[in-house]
Amino acid sequence: MASPDTPLVPADDVEVALERAVAARRHAHLFAERAAGIKQSAVRDVFDISMRPGLVSLAGGNPFLQSLPLEKLGALAYQLITEQGLVALQYGAGQGTPELRRQICEVMAEEGITDADPANVIVTVGSQSAQDIACKVFCNPGDVVLCEDPTYVGALNTFEAYQVRAEPVATDEDGLVPEALERRIAELRAAGANVKFLYTIPSFNNPSGITMAAGRRQRIVEICRTADVLVLEDNPYGLLRFDGRPMRPLRAGNPDDVIYLGSFSKILAPGLRLGWALVPAHLQRRFYLASESVTLCPPTLNQMLVSGYLAGHDWRGQIATYRGLYAERCAAMLAALDEFMPAGISWTRPDGGFFVWVSLPGHVDTYPLLHRAIDAGVVFIPGAAFSPSDRPSSKLRLAFSAVSADSIREGVRRLAPVLQAAI
Amino acid sequence: MASPDTPLVPADDVEVALERAVAARRHAHLFAERAAGIKQSAVRDVFDISMRPGLVSLAGGNPFLQSLPLEKLGALAYQLITEQGLVALQYGAGQGTPELRRQICEVMAEEGITDADPANVIVTVGSQSAQDIACKVFCNPGDVVLCEDPTYVGALNTFEAYQVRAEPVATDEDGLVPEALERRIAELRAAGANVKFLYTIPSFNNPSGITMAAGRRQRIVEICRTADVLVLEDNPYGLLRFDGRPMRPLRAGNPDDVIYLGSFSKILAPGLRLGWALVPAHLQRRFYLASESVTLCPPTLNQMLVSGYLAGHDWRGQIATYRGLYAERCAAMLAALDEFMPAGISWTRPDGGFFVWVSLPGHVDTYPLLHRAIDAGVVFIPGAAFSPSDRPSSKLRLAFSAVSADSIREGVRRLAPVLQAAI
Repeated sequence: MASPDTPLVPADDVEVALERAVAARRHAHLFAERAAGIKQSAVRDVFDISMRPGLVSLAGGNPFLQSLPLEKLGALAYQLITEQGLVALQYGAGQGTPELRRQICEVMAEEGITDADPANVIVTVGSQSAQDIACKVFCNPGDVVLCEDPTYVGALNTFEAYQVRAEPVATDEDGLVPEALERRIAELRAAGANVKFLYTIPSFNNPSGITMAAGRRQRIVEICRTADVLVLEDNPYGLLRFDGRPMRPLRAGNPDDVIYLGSFSKILAPGLRLGWALVPAHLQRRFYLASESVTLCPPTLNQMLVSGYLAGHDWRGQIATYRGLYAERCAAMLAALDEFMPAGISWTRPDGGFFVWVSLPGHVDTYPLLHRAIDAGVVFIPGAAFSPSDRPSSKLRLAFSAVSADSIREGVRRLAPVLQAAI
Repeated sequence: MASPDTPLVPADDVEVALERAVAARRHAHLFAERAAGIKQSAVRDVFDISMRPGLVSLAGGNPFLQSLPLEKLGALAYQLITEQGLVALQYGAGQGTPELRRQICEVMAEEGITDADPANVIVTVGSQSAQDIACKVFCNPGDVVLCEDPTYVGALNTFEAYQVRAEPVATDEDGLVPEALERRIAELRAAGANVKFLYTIPSFNNPSGITMAAGRRQRIVEICRTADVLVLEDNPYGLLRFDGRPMRPLRAGNPDDVIYLGSFSKILAPGLRLGWALVPAHLQRRFYLASESVTLCPPTLNQMLVSGYLAGHDWRGQIATYRGLYAERCAAMLAALDEFMPAGISWTRPDGGFFVWVSLPGHVDTYPLLHRAIDAGVVFIPGAAFSPSDRPSSKLRLAFSAVSADSIREGVRRLAPVLQAAI
């Protein structure tokens, strides 16, 4: 007889559960080796939690869309579907529409990439997809990709899915340290590693907010060029520098050695899922074919919508609006940190982008603090998510992009005692 | 001194070309092994050619979008962006919106899949992307996937990109031959192969137009189940059966052994790039995480547009319209083939879908005929594109989906003398 603690389950459900368990066992040997490395992103985990009412989420790096010209975008979508629907709703070219690829070159010119040829632009389903394609084209299992530590969690997930070893290179407050990069490549080569590319987010790094100094950029590319290592430059935030002109990307002036990834997710709308890769001419064909083999073509309607927006709206003005908005929110976050954080905690002071990176004393693991923070009404992302190493992390990421200045202050106020108790 | 035949090239261009050649050589060793298998699809090649004015294209399997309610879809997009833009243009859940996944279950119920749980539906960027994910989750290099010969060229490209061996199983006019499937699995196993799944397009196969007989379907699944081989059922055309009810998919009644792929590309609009996978519960998590690692999430606006269309429009009536339209065009093609084709040429008589498969005498290679056909003003896809083997093919694919009955007749009329001359 069942003990009182045994839950009563309807007989049907037991049968279904049994059948499923049997099927799971039968199919266990069917998984590819790489499948073991495909994991839930900690960011996505927290994404679900952070939707709870009453919480202040400093977790998600969502752009703030309230300032978009929704009436204009809606009217444009209406016009595209009713007047050009037979094109907008049909299959298109695998590389993306010629018009959007030409306009993407104009967007990149804002940052100083003035020699881009639309023939070398490949429109992708967000720049996440471009990272997947880069691994598909270049990485065998066991190959090495160099990266910052911390770095973008989605890229780390992609590397794991391709069984790529992500090897960190030392950084300081000016980003990657050139000498450390040079040394790391030499060490890895000496140990027999195949180093394929350096993955870097040089401007307003996600999660650290750190920017690679202008004076280092050319040196970094030259070290990679000399070592025959490609640079994969991920630059979704580049145009969102708070003050002054955007920084010159590593790709500017280095057409043969840098694959540049851009995105409309932060300067327009992530729900359209449109990014791009600007690829060296001699690598264009493989990159394009790999992209086509995954999705056939990017969504046509979305491409035409972005084209219409870029052609008919003051998108530079919109970016200026965003820069002001995010600058204000970042200032609110830094002021709140100054006001509430106890001694022994430090943080970065970004010049753009969405994130501040907070460092606790080295003995603190921020992962278990997350649940205490949620109890206190605030959400962050623990630092371990952003590291290629498996070690605990004493860091955490705070995003200021998606919430108001008041909420940012309230969130930091709630977070402070949780961190205080831990140190 | 240069001979008069040497083209004069500006010195700058020479320098650029030289630099590029040097870079190409420096980077040649960076490609992954799999990159060698990533090729241009012959269908996409012809896609570009077939845009030339004056040609009748029987090449592309584009759906005919003229009958869509464009005014309604446009108004819906306007409403979504202006009233719900902050959701529609933002990141969404990696698995797809709950509403669309629930509606997808209603669409599948039309075909006889009545036990689908929205929790096991994963919305993908077209069903091409779902094929990529299936390979990512299940296939190591060298693994075997069983398939029909001929089969969908996009799937063959995906298999090559994952270094998977696509092994054909014998078919007849009723589709896959169960005994041949059983024998092939045993032979491959005896030879040490890892057979991961059977990829099949059971209804109105692309390119053959052949449908797997109802009486064979359960037997095919059972053979795979007994051998612990999954079934990947690709069913984009299932609802486009000309007469009678749709055929019952292999997935119906077999929740644990079949991954079912569906698509909005043929019943609504390919330019939205939305498809889905219905995955056995015990495989759902890996499949979903792999999907998320490639694209983060499917485009939110597009999902909401499809949801609004399904909720507010008579989509069953729209499918009935399509069925009538494609039935008429198929009849026009079969009548034209009867009228114009010389003796010695045969073709399939599909019950649905977009394609007729034409067989020439075995000694004829249809690939070189393509250029003669283009000169004669008509385009088709040579059969070799659809075969996992590298041998020349005496077959060719004609699509009746995208052109009017008159154009179909004219295209077949132009094609006949080209084929006549070849046999």
